[in-house]
Amino acid sequence: MIGLVIVSHSNKISNGIVDLCYQMAGKNIKIISAGGTSDGRIGTDPIFIKEAIEKANDGDGVVIFADIGSSIMSSELAIEMLEKDLQEKTYILDTPIVEGAVAVAVQACMSNDIQEILNVAEEARQTRKIS
Amino acid sequence: MIGLVIVSHSNKISNGIVDLCYQMAGKNIKIISAGGTSDGRIGTDPIFIKEAIEKANDGDGVVIFADIGSSIMSSELAIEMLEKDLQEKTYILDTPIVEGAVAVAVQACMSNDIQEILNVAEEARQTRKIS
Repeated sequence: MIGLVIVSHSNKISNGIVDLCYQMAGKNIKIISAGGTSDGRIGTDPIFIKEAIEKANDGDGVVIFADIGSSIMSSELAIEMLEKDLQEKTYILDTPIVEGAVAVAVQACMSNDIQEILNVAEEARQTRKIS
Repeated sequence: MIGLVIVSHSNKISNGIVDLCYQMAGKNIKIISAGGTSDGRIGTDPIFIKEAIEKANDGDGVVIFADIGSSIMSSELAIEMLEKDLQEKTYILDTPIVEGAVAVAVQACMSNDIQEILNVAEEARQTRKIS
């Protein structure tokens, strides 16, 4: 199953997203919180993210959700530190961190197809909340 | 100053968004967490949200950030319960809850113009994280 890593600048946000995803998608999926710095401050930490990616991977690869600014750069640095094999199946998704993670967690329980995951992430980015 | 109310299904997410917004925008603005149910479970609660809107309002109105599904409906119910005067200056923003709240918190510190707030929220919705 594809694993999820949540990279908010706040570990409260990341931990809350993990709770919400498990509530919506069930507990069969690996969703790892990598929010905040490793000592709990606001920020992001490439090494902390790298370790989360390794934990989230069960062989099928990992998708990363990031919030603002440097969370993307820290995630890119984390991917550079991975073994080549895992590097090639790790993706940063261009989707809102909360809304995208919930949608993808549900999808990842149904299918290992990375293209379908990317489509669901993009759909979450484009869906309007208020019609 | 326009106040912010954060309505995630998870109070960890809402509390984390408040922390992150204060970090980015400074402490001069009212940002109230109304995530989760009033007893801390995953969900949303119209009465809890109504009280948060009243706390966030200093006379200039309030904007609400919601995450998924019923958070919009609970926010709409909360607005219906408000006094008419506050009701008319409370808006639910169609923007990602984390990314939109941070962008709007920064903008709200600079201007009370609701149209500018709506524009910033829409920009946060449309901005791609990965170019």
